[in-house]
Amino acid sequence: MSIVVQKYGGSSVGTIEKIKKVAESVISKKKQGHDVVVVVSAMGDTTDNLICLAKEVTCNPDKRELDALISTGEMMSSSLLAMTIKSLGFESISYTAYQVGVKANGMHGKSFIDDIDDSKIKESLKMGRIVVIAGFQGINQEGNITTLGRGGSDTSAVAIAAKLKGSCEIYTDVDGIYSIDPRVYKDAKKLDYIEYEEMLELSSLGAQVMHSRAVELGQKYDIPIYVGLSNGNERGTIIKGMNNMNMEMKAITGLATSDDDVSITIEDVSNNINIISDIFNKVAERHINIDMISQTAPINNTVNLSFTIPKEDVEECMGIIEEYSSRDKIHIDENITKFSVVGIGMKTTSGVTARIFKLFSENHIEVKMITTSEIRITCAIKREDKFNAVNIVAKEFNL
Amino acid sequence: MSIVVQKYGGSSVGTIEKIKKVAESVISKKKQGHDVVVVVSAMGDTTDNLICLAKEVTCNPDKRELDALISTGEMMSSSLLAMTIKSLGFESISYTAYQVGVKANGMHGKSFIDDIDDSKIKESLKMGRIVVIAGFQGINQEGNITTLGRGGSDTSAVAIAAKLKGSCEIYTDVDGIYSIDPRVYKDAKKLDYIEYEEMLELSSLGAQVMHSRAVELGQKYDIPIYVGLSNGNERGTIIKGMNNMNMEMKAITGLATSDDDVSITIEDVSNNINIISDIFNKVAERHINIDMISQTAPINNTVNLSFTIPKEDVEECMGIIEEYSSRDKIHIDENITKFSVVGIGMKTTSGVTARIFKLFSENHIEVKMITTSEIRITCAIKREDKFNAVNIVAKEFNL
Repeated sequence: MSIVVQKYGGSSVGTIEKIKKVAESVISKKKQGHDVVVVVSAMGDTTDNLICLAKEVTCNPDKRELDALISTGEMMSSSLLAMTIKSLGFESISYTAYQVGVKANGMHGKSFIDDIDDSKIKESLKMGRIVVIAGFQGINQEGNITTLGRGGSDTSAVAIAAKLKGSCEIYTDVDGIYSIDPRVYKDAKKLDYIEYEEMLELSSLGAQVMHSRAVELGQKYDIPIYVGLSNGNERGTIIKGMNNMNMEMKAITGLATSDDDVSITIEDVSNNINIISDIFNKVAERHINIDMISQTAPINNTVNLSFTIPKEDVEECMGIIEEYSSRDKIHIDENITKFSVVGIGMKTTSGVTARIFKLFSENHIEVKMITTSEIRITCAIKREDKFNAVNIVAKEFNL
Repeated sequence: MSIVVQKYGGSSVGTIEKIKKVAESVISKKKQGHDVVVVVSAMGDTTDNLICLAKEVTCNPDKRELDALISTGEMMSSSLLAMTIKSLGFESISYTAYQVGVKANGMHGKSFIDDIDDSKIKESLKMGRIVVIAGFQGINQEGNITTLGRGGSDTSAVAIAAKLKGSCEIYTDVDGIYSIDPRVYKDAKKLDYIEYEEMLELSSLGAQVMHSRAVELGQKYDIPIYVGLSNGNERGTIIKGMNNMNMEMKAITGLATSDDDVSITIEDVSNNINIISDIFNKVAERHINIDMISQTAPINNTVNLSFTIPKEDVEECMGIIEEYSSRDKIHIDENITKFSVVGIGMKTTSGVTARIFKLFSENHIEVKMITTSEIRITCAIKREDKFNAVNIVAKEFNL
């Protein structure tokens, strides 16, 4: 009998009616002969409402106490789900992070799971119970309740699946992972499979479907993660490792765009590594995240330096670089879109960059900056070229 | 430096505004140089709302899961209070029953506190922190969260005070204990002191001010318990032991009435102890609580047997006694009031019963039944005599 860890998000357990539907779905899995462990998020807006309550106290609530407060949301939903399963005639028990020893460390609100004591879970499964565990929470070394950050219940679920050597199913309000955000490209295809690294790249590019740390954990312990709708029979997407992938990989799996950055160009910067690194260090000290960087070849020992930063940080950033350059040498371009393609297939398929550049050139799309990783290509293009670029690349690579 | 354990009820922490007032009151105690431990109930109607949610699942929710659910209310209020105290510049920390090892046993929803591991509390007090503990909850031997019953936070507070050898202050929405319910007798006096036994008798007679088990614990460990308003400087009432009482005790401390019982009389019952005990056993098996019992002297080897039971149990009780007697021999009197006086002074003051009987006879108040304990006299009288009886006894004994 295999162990299945299912996670249901806040919108799936938003009302008692919905909790009853989840209970039925969990029971049907149990009836198929699986040992079932369920991880739940807090009901609907519970977490947000608790945070609002804390903000009524003070705009900067103590982080330990905030974690103690917001972790109650998952305790509520887990006991309600176990209660519902029992009322339908199946054995069930809810556990908090304390009760199953979810050991965590790191900052309050952003903790990491270190280990899980699976003895109680296994014992309950052996007794035929459906085990329901409050997600999002852990206990740190001081015995304090701590939380794992937004979407942390995903991480709880994958960690439990890893510990129990089970499979993991994340049920949520999206029907799977798409090659492109359907709001940007309506013909985007739902993926049957996506590789961990690809998913991580897409998440870092703004795909909010999964908690990144959950994907990292899945990758580390090689746990395939199913993502899909909680109430549908439609097929969702499985996030899994290279070894399990189809040998004939597509060069590109996903495409993402972002309009949240601006590019800053500084003309005639002295081509001195100390000065350039000094600028970047000072920007980093203010926790401003520099993404793409490009530099022209030196002429008369000066270079033009360009980089992108989040829109909201422009003013603060200007304050720093004006120490190094006069205002008229600094150019801000707000009219850019970051255009990225992701695919583990790029590791083995050469010429992807060349194909994209050719497409762009044929369609008069100017590439202002470019950065690449082993499985990602990101270009800064003009905002008005965005939909055209998405269309031609999606068609060329069959996304 | 003395340790003070303060308990604030649900209405005292019903909103963030009220929690801020509680925080100020706690801090002022701390500023007076005390080590302060605070026990809180859930905010306002939180517990009732959580029970409603469970009832939406099923009319008979699993008791373990119900306890897990409703115990979250106190976790929320305790973290919010600690957060508020910290925001006002004082060190504070909230603890759940798990974190301070509140060991409990007994049925879910009605558990008893066995012991408390006070090491974390003491350590935090030593660090100058105001310690806030979630009331109403304990952890049983199986590691499950369990609750102590309605008003259980009172018991949590007294148990913690007993363990820490501190004093205990229960802040609530009443300004103290009255000799008589002011709704029944408007000139009723607020008591400065009341003895544990007296308080227990008054509680069992329907005075809802304090959780009875809290008073029992106070008595067992000789912890004086202050009861008063959370926001006032008015003096409340101290519940304490005989040794601490004024030597010149009043004969009667309190008076209580109840209209919730009916008396049932069975005529011509065979004066056979087996039959009579059989009736009482069968009634007890149905969890019907028989209170006052009286029996006439036997004539022709039959007796008239009278007893009182709660109104709502009449029908069920009739079903039982009709097996022993014909319907026309059974008389139900719904028109009674149970009138009780309580006073530890009765142990040493003789003639209290005689004085009351004399008063009643002078005022034509008929006593239908009477039971007495060492510190209590209860009479069943006609409902219409209630206010008259309260008035003359209150004046005679200066209540």
